[in-house]
Amino acid sequence: MSDKRKRRRPDPDSDSDTRPFKHLLKPDTTILSSLRTLASSSAAASSSKTLTLSDLRLSAACREVSDLPPSAVQSAIESLAVSLARSILSGQGFSFTVPSRSSANQLYVPELDRIVLKDKTSLRPYSSVSTVRKTTITTRILHLIHQLCLKNIHVTKRDLFYTDVKLFQDQTQSDAVLDDVSCIVGCTRSSLNVVAAEKGVVVGRLIFSDNGDMIDCTKMGMGGKAIPPNIDRVGDMKSDALFILLVEKDAAYMRLAEDRFYNRFPCIIVTAKGQPDVATRLFLRKMKMELKLPVLALVDSDPYGLKILSVYGCGSKNMSYDSANLTTPDIKWLGIRPSDLDKYKIPEQCRLPMTEQDIKTGKDLLEEDFVKKNPGWVEELNLMVKSKQKAEIQALSSFGFQYLSEVYLPLKLQQRDWL
Amino acid sequence: MSDKRKRRRPDPDSDSDTRPFKHLLKPDTTILSSLRTLASSSAAASSSKTLTLSDLRLSAACREVSDLPPSAVQSAIESLAVSLARSILSGQGFSFTVPSRSSANQLYVPELDRIVLKDKTSLRPYSSVSTVRKTTITTRILHLIHQLCLKNIHVTKRDLFYTDVKLFQDQTQSDAVLDDVSCIVGCTRSSLNVVAAEKGVVVGRLIFSDNGDMIDCTKMGMGGKAIPPNIDRVGDMKSDALFILLVEKDAAYMRLAEDRFYNRFPCIIVTAKGQPDVATRLFLRKMKMELKLPVLALVDSDPYGLKILSVYGCGSKNMSYDSANLTTPDIKWLGIRPSDLDKYKIPEQCRLPMTEQDIKTGKDLLEEDFVKKNPGWVEELNLMVKSKQKAEIQALSSFGFQYLSEVYLPLKLQQRDWL
Repeated sequence: MSDKRKRRRPDPDSDSDTRPFKHLLKPDTTILSSLRTLASSSAAASSSKTLTLSDLRLSAACREVSDLPPSAVQSAIESLAVSLARSILSGQGFSFTVPSRSSANQLYVPELDRIVLKDKTSLRPYSSVSTVRKTTITTRILHLIHQLCLKNIHVTKRDLFYTDVKLFQDQTQSDAVLDDVSCIVGCTRSSLNVVAAEKGVVVGRLIFSDNGDMIDCTKMGMGGKAIPPNIDRVGDMKSDALFILLVEKDAAYMRLAEDRFYNRFPCIIVTAKGQPDVATRLFLRKMKMELKLPVLALVDSDPYGLKILSVYGCGSKNMSYDSANLTTPDIKWLGIRPSDLDKYKIPEQCRLPMTEQDIKTGKDLLEEDFVKKNPGWVEELNLMVKSKQKAEIQALSSFGFQYLSEVYLPLKLQQRDWL
Repeated sequence: MSDKRKRRRPDPDSDSDTRPFKHLLKPDTTILSSLRTLASSSAAASSSKTLTLSDLRLSAACREVSDLPPSAVQSAIESLAVSLARSILSGQGFSFTVPSRSSANQLYVPELDRIVLKDKTSLRPYSSVSTVRKTTITTRILHLIHQLCLKNIHVTKRDLFYTDVKLFQDQTQSDAVLDDVSCIVGCTRSSLNVVAAEKGVVVGRLIFSDNGDMIDCTKMGMGGKAIPPNIDRVGDMKSDALFILLVEKDAAYMRLAEDRFYNRFPCIIVTAKGQPDVATRLFLRKMKMELKLPVLALVDSDPYGLKILSVYGCGSKNMSYDSANLTTPDIKWLGIRPSDLDKYKIPEQCRLPMTEQDIKTGKDLLEEDFVKKNPGWVEELNLMVKSKQKAEIQALSSFGFQYLSEVYLPLKLQQRDWL
C-alpha cells in the first residue's frame, strides 16, 4: 500500500485523503476478519439442506427440469419415440404433450425464492391443421438433439436453425420449440447440448477445469478468463476466496481486475457485461453451490441494475422451467444502492434523471414478489422512484478513477453494508 | 479420427461420406505441407521492410501517431503545457493546434493499403466564444490523461466522462476530444491508457503474457482467453501455428474451439464477436507482426462481412489517424465468399435475400479503394450484388454441425482457396 500511495501522491483530486470517507477506512485485517465470518456463515447456510419442490409438496403441482447427461437425454428421446409409435399403432394417433410455458402457468415460490412452472400442459397433435407444423418442428428438433447427444458436441441456437431453414422458416420458431423440448424431456437446455454464445468473464481466486484444461483465474492478467458456453465441461472448482463479487458492467470489472482487488480482498470477480447470459448464470450458480461462498452484487443504481440482480437470483420468466438450475440463491445487493447516492455524496451532475420508462420499470419491480419479500430492497427501490434519480457504477469515478476499488468497496465490506 | 468417425456413424445426414466434397479431401499431411509453404512465404514477406509514410515522402503531408510509453506521453503533455504558458506570457494567448479528423482530411494510401490522416490542422483558441468550451474540455482531458500516465492505470472512455460530467455534459464530447488529444500528443489512444471494453477471445497455438501472467491458449478449454483491453501489457508471444484464423462470429468460433481445430491444423483462432473492437484489432496486429503468420479470414458472405474484414485490414475512417497501429496488413479472404454459395451447393433455403440496404452497402464497398485494388474481391462483391444473395457462416450447418470444421475449412486450406 504505502509505496502505491507514494506513487499516487502527485494526483491531488483523486488521491489525497480528502477523498470522501477515505478516513473511515479501517486496516484491511479488520475488514478481512468480518468477511471471514460472512463466508463461514454463508457456508453453514448453504450446507443446510436447500428446499425442493417436493419438500413443499409442490412436485405434483409444479414442474422443474434437471441436468441430465447426454446418454440420459438420448434414451429419453428414444423412449418418447417408442411411446409415440405405440400410440400411432394403437390408433391413438401422433401427438406431443407439451408443458405450457405461458406466464399464466408460472408461479413464484417464496420458500424457494424462484419462479417455477406449474403443471398445465397442452396437446400438440399431428393430425390438426393448427398444430401440424409445430408438431413436425418438434419432431425434427428432437431428432437433431438426439444427434448432438450421440456425438456429445455443442451447438448454438443459430446452428440448430440453419440445419433446416426450410422447415423452421425463422429462428424464433426453432428457439421456441427448443424450450418446449427441454420441458418435454424434463432436462435443462444445456443438457440438450445447445449453448448460448459466451459473454461473461471471470478473474480472481478461482481454479477450475474447462474441457479438461485447468484454469487458474489469478493468472489471467487483466483480460480474465472467458466463461465457457458449456457448463457441463466445467468442474474441479477450487478457491480460497471469501466471497464472489458479481459485477454488472465491464468497466467496473476492468478497474477491479487491473487493481487486482481480489488479492487485497480474496474474492472471485465475475461479470456478464450487462444482461446475464445463460452461460454466466450457470457458472455463477455452480461457483455458489460448489464453493459455498456469499455472492455480493455491484450493479448500477437504476431499475435495470436491480432487474439484472433478480435474473441472477430468481430467474427470468421465459426460462422459468429451468429456474432451479439457472438461479443463484441469496445474492446480496452490495451497491450502487439509491441510498448510496446521498450517503457517498455522489455529485448532482453525475446522477442522471430517470426517464418515464425507468420510473415505470421501477414501479413494476415494486410489484414483483422477489422484491417484496426483501424489505430492504423495497425501501431502496421506493427511494429511487421517489428521488427519480439513477447513477451508474462509473459515477464513482468523479472521486478519482480508483475510488471504487480503494474506498467505496472496501468501506462497503467493512461496514457489511449489503441487503 | 477413426474412432471419432465410429462415434459419428449413427448420424446419416451430416456424417456419412455423402457430405458434399468430403470425398475431395486429401490426407491432412498434404494440406499441412501446403500450409507450411504459405507460412514461410508470409514470414519472408513480413520480414521484408514494410513501407512507411516517410518512404513514400508523405511524412510531411500526412500525420500518423505512434505507440508511446506513459512516461513519454506524460512529458509530451508537460512540454505542451509549458509552451502554452509561454504563449500566454508572450501575449499570444492560449490556444491548441488540433489536427483535423474530418473525412476531407483523410487519404487512402494504396502503397500502405491504409487510410491515413492528412496534415490539415485547425486552431482552438480559448479567447473565442465558439471554442472556449472545447478548449476547456481539451485542457481537462490532457490533465486527466496526465494523471493516468503518472499512475499507469487504464480506464474506459466512460470513466473519463464521469470524472467531470458538469464540464463534458455528454460522453460524445469527451470522446471526440480524446481522439483530438491522441492527434495533438501524436500517440495512439491506447498510449493514453484509455481502453475499450474487451470483447474478443483467442484460442489455439499461442502463448503470451497478459499483465505479467503467462497464458497458454491451447489450455483455455472451449471458452478461450478473453483478449486483454490494454495491449501494452501483452507480450512474449510464442506460437507453433501455421496461420491465424480470424473468425467473424461467435458461433463459428465455438465450433472450431470445441473441435480443437487448432490441433488438427496448427493455428490461432481469434474473434471479436462481430464488429472489431480496438483491443482485438491491436491484438491481431501484434500477433501478425511478432509471429509473422498469414491471416485467413472467415466472415459471413454479406457486405458487412467484407466491411469487417476491411476494418481489420485497412482501418476505420473515424480512427484513421491511428491506422498504422490498428490495421493488420495482407489479410486473406478465405470465406464464406459469394462464389462459395454455388461452389459448395449451399441450399437455397439457407441463403438470405439481400435487403435494399445490403445492396447499397455492397455497391458503396465497390467504390472503396481497398476493395478496388483487389480484383478478386471486386469480382466476388460484384457476384454478391448481382445475385442479391447473402449467407451466414452458420449456413454450412445445413450439411451437419461439424461440416465447417471437418470439410469446408480443410478443403479451403487444401485448395489454397483464399483471395
